[in-house]
Amino acid sequence: MLDHPLSPGLTSAIERGPWHYGADYIAVYFRADPRSLAQLVPEPFVVDGGLCNAYVCEIVSVGDSNPEMTATRPDRTVYHEGAVGVKCKFGERSGVFYPVMWVTTEWSLLRGILNGYQKRLADSISMTKLHPLNPGLGPIAPGTGLGGFCVKGPERTLSLRVRIEKKGSQADLPSFGATFGMRRFPRTDQSQGAVGEPVEILKSNSRVTDVWIGSGEVETVLDVRDVQPVLGAAYRGGFTISGSKVLT
Amino acid sequence: MLDHPLSPGLTSAIERGPWHYGADYIAVYFRADPRSLAQLVPEPFVVDGGLCNAYVCEIVSVGDSNPEMTATRPDRTVYHEGAVGVKCKFGERSGVFYPVMWVTTEWSLLRGILNGYQKRLADSISMTKLHPLNPGLGPIAPGTGLGGFCVKGPERTLSLRVRIEKKGSQADLPSFGATFGMRRFPRTDQSQGAVGEPVEILKSNSRVTDVWIGSGEVETVLDVRDVQPVLGAAYRGGFTISGSKVLT
Amino acid sequence: MLDHPLSPGLTSAIERGPWHYGADYIAVYFRADPRSLAQLVPEPFVVDGGLCNAYVCEIVSVGDSNPEMTATRPDRTVYHEGAVGVKCKFGERSGVFYPVMWVTTEWSLLRGILNGYQKRLADSISMTKLHPLNPGLGPIAPGTGLGGFCVKGPERTLSLRVRIEKKGSQADLPSFGATFGMRRFPRTDQSQGAVGEPVEILKSNSRVTDVWIGSGEVETVLDVRDVQPVLGAAYRGGFTISGSKVLT
Amino acid sequence: MLDHPLSPGLTSAIERGPWHYGADYIAVYFRADPRSLAQLVPEPFVVDGGLCNAYVCEIVSVGDSNPEMTATRPDRTVYHEGAVGVKCKFGERSGVFYPVMWVTTEWSLLRGILNGYQKRLADSISMTKLHPLNPGLGPIAPGTGLGGFCVKGPERTLSLRVRIEKKGSQADLPSFGATFGMRRFPRTDQSQGAVGEPVEILKSNSRVTDVWIGSGEVETVLDVRDVQPVLGAAYRGGFTISGSKVLT
Repeated sequence: MLDHPLSPGLTSAIERGPWHYGADYIAVYFRADPRSLAQLVPEPFVVDGGLCNAYVCEIVSVGDSNPEMTATRPDRTVYHEGAVGVKCKFGERSGVFYPVMWVTTEWSLLRGILNGYQKRLADSISMTKLHPLNPGLGPIAPGTGLGGFCVKGPERTLSLRVRIEKKGSQADLPSFGATFGMRRFPRTDQSQGAVGEPVEILKSNSRVTDVWIGSGEVETVLDVRDVQPVLGAAYRGGFTISGSKVLT
Repeated sequence: MLDHPLSPGLTSAIERGPWHYGADYIAVYFRADPRSLAQLVPEPFVVDGGLCNAYVCEIVSVGDSNPEMTATRPDRTVYHEGAVGVKCKFGERSGVFYPVMWVTTEWSLLRGILNGYQKRLADSISMTKLHPLNPGLGPIAPGTGLGGFCVKGPERTLSLRVRIEKKGSQADLPSFGATFGMRRFPRTDQSQGAVGEPVEILKSNSRVTDVWIGSGEVETVLDVRDVQPVLGAAYRGGFTISGSKVLT
Repeated sequence: MLDHPLSPGLTSAIERGPWHYGADYIAVYFRADPRSLAQLVPEPFVVDGGLCNAYVCEIVSVGDSNPEMTATRPDRTVYHEGAVGVKCKFGERSGVFYPVMWVTTEWSLLRGILNGYQKRLADSISMTKLHPLNPGLGPIAPGTGLGGFCVKGPERTLSLRVRIEKKGSQADLPSFGATFGMRRFPRTDQSQGAVGEPVEILKSNSRVTDVWIGSGEVETVLDVRDVQPVLGAAYRGGFTISGSKVLT
Repeated sequence: MLDHPLSPGLTSAIERGPWHYGADYIAVYFRADPRSLAQLVPEPFVVDGGLCNAYVCEIVSVGDSNPEMTATRPDRTVYHEGAVGVKCKFGERSGVFYPVMWVTTEWSLLRGILNGYQKRLADSISMTKLHPLNPGLGPIAPGTGLGGFCVKGPERTLSLRVRIEKKGSQADLPSFGATFGMRRFPRTDQSQGAVGEPVEILKSNSRVTDVWIGSGEVETVLDVRDVQPVLGAAYRGGFTISGSKVLT
């Protein structure tokens, strides 16, 4: 039987979870006018102070049951992502809500939407890579510049620049708490069923390594005002997502 | 407020409907082993005799409230589509179910999934165009060859060839009746809501012109056996989709 | 034998010429500061007054010996192009030189470079299409808006908007004369041969139909100053290119 | 002044050399019928015994004068490449000639053609990545499967599979000697200049690390017969290309 595009399975757009991720990030943390951020965050989430993050990353991802797809279908295991996240509260619980998360593949788009991420398809996402054997490049170090951008249609939707100052650790990266989302499958006719529910992404196995920190700059098409960069960073991360739990 | 990707609106991936379509098709109608087709069609739909269609097309589409997007955001109004459809019954009602419909843009992918089409994103879809002012090409006529193909990842998922024999009319094209679909938004956790419902696409304003008919060939990655081409065709069509109605 | 990518042949990137073209254009004619234009035009061409054109178009093109590739390899017969042209003189001869011409396919890029066009690969080019059977769209008419844009890397390299006022004719479109180019194949080592020669593109069979005219706007990454739009237009054109002749 | 697309410079498609490369390879070495290989190799090169290589790789590359483009224009510093190479002789000199080398960016395509590589643009190239922090993936080790493929138009032009058996070293990888090429810029009119010359790529700073070896499989659209895989491998490499020298 052919799977529905959204019904995880061998012939679906989405592998069966849990889904494992390993990623290389270039990130800028910033503060912005909380009133402008409020326009980007749906109820029941409430903007918490104005801290945000923005990143571009390359992700290697596999479903728990098909890790060998890295060899058999590598196009189904590598993608790029760019996103802007806003520190929020759901009641007393702190977390981050991503008003938009641009990705470069169908399977990441649909898997994310199913879990509650507000994913959109980018036309392209580019970001700095430094190869250790390139005779013209040194390793990341104080002074190294990094950058990335995301393009969709006629727009550069997100653009980041980071200047590394020193080696850091996970403790140097602002913590946001949980990852919030909004699962929504609206009606196009009154006869239809619908879903609309705030969720928390079920993340586990989180690890962060190779942290470098410095200054950063960020530009985005989102209407985010009074942007004040706080920190630029590069790091590697890994985690597992098993789904998302409805917040009540 | 930023719209959810699936919640039709100005900042969503999906414009508000009704949605209007104008398309140029290259199509092959064929018969195939109904048992192999049964693996491609979910309950409650039942394969009806083995007649199928396959097509590639270029579509110009606008939401009813934003037709000026043809000028302001042309990337949001043109896409390519390839599909294989199977003649089915829902009870006594005849129609066509498309086990898969490949498209080249995010907005067409998500709009279709919301309405109940089993859409998937293609990497590329190519098809014959004949320009009337190209000094090396004549107009479509008996003997003209047409073709198209759809690529996704490492696969050519669909490939069509048509040889035109004569001018035809809409009456020459096999009729399938209604357009069926399956709206599905599965759970990734037991706490979540879900949708799973057979639908009929709400189509109106249908017109077909510029019909040419002849012989055809089709190849697809779908496990469709004993393929016997019945007719090749080229035509233009237009219609409006206002949503989809749950079948009960 | 496998053809070299630049040596026209069956397994090359380039079909054997002459090459035939049929295209749908959205164009804006404008005047700009001739001194800024001089920076875009190489010797021996001389900017002639400051008249320029800019366009986006969809082109159907075939080599004279393989017109059936429209059916067998449609991906090798359709592409999009965007360009900015500057009215120039070569001695007493009037013409247009295109400092850059963005295209969406390899074969158009390499064929153009071989003939002397300064072609570059775009990531995407989008432009208005109006389909006659789309129930939400009318035909082109006074008041119709048209637009197009070209994206390369992080940049929107060219963006056009046209507002149609009335039906026109070829006589309404400013004439530039010949099409100039620069064939160049530089050395990367002193032992190598090189080519560097001004050329005139050998165009024939030119036809223009379906002309509509009105007002226009243009934006480009090229350093073109004091842009004053003169005319917006939409039209269809066809022509044949057999190569290019060295100007002496 | 705007640079010609092929004239290395800031506004050209090609940065000024020397050009530095760092790459991650998945490779299969194989033997094939030398007569079928002879059809892929132009004079004055002569097939030498039938040894070939095939690879897909991701490359980080910078021009010597603009290494900071990794941050400012990352889209101009990362690409994917797939190729098939044939062991050849030029007189007494041993080397490898690549009948075709598919790449994913304009700048790599044009830089390569300028230096004498028979480059072609791929629509997409995918290959295995293993991220050390992905909880579902282990590091490369005996038993690890790797794969990659290259797609152009309707074709999968190259496809590789490797099964790792053990850690290796550079000495385990077959050596081909020099890298040969063919610089060609043909005429499209008798008035034009032309270039056609066999070259040797001027490579320096070569390093290879992280070699793993095992078995491999390869499929290609090239007409290569009696393919007998000899070795599968994964490794990292770096080198500098300063241009190419005409062979006389």
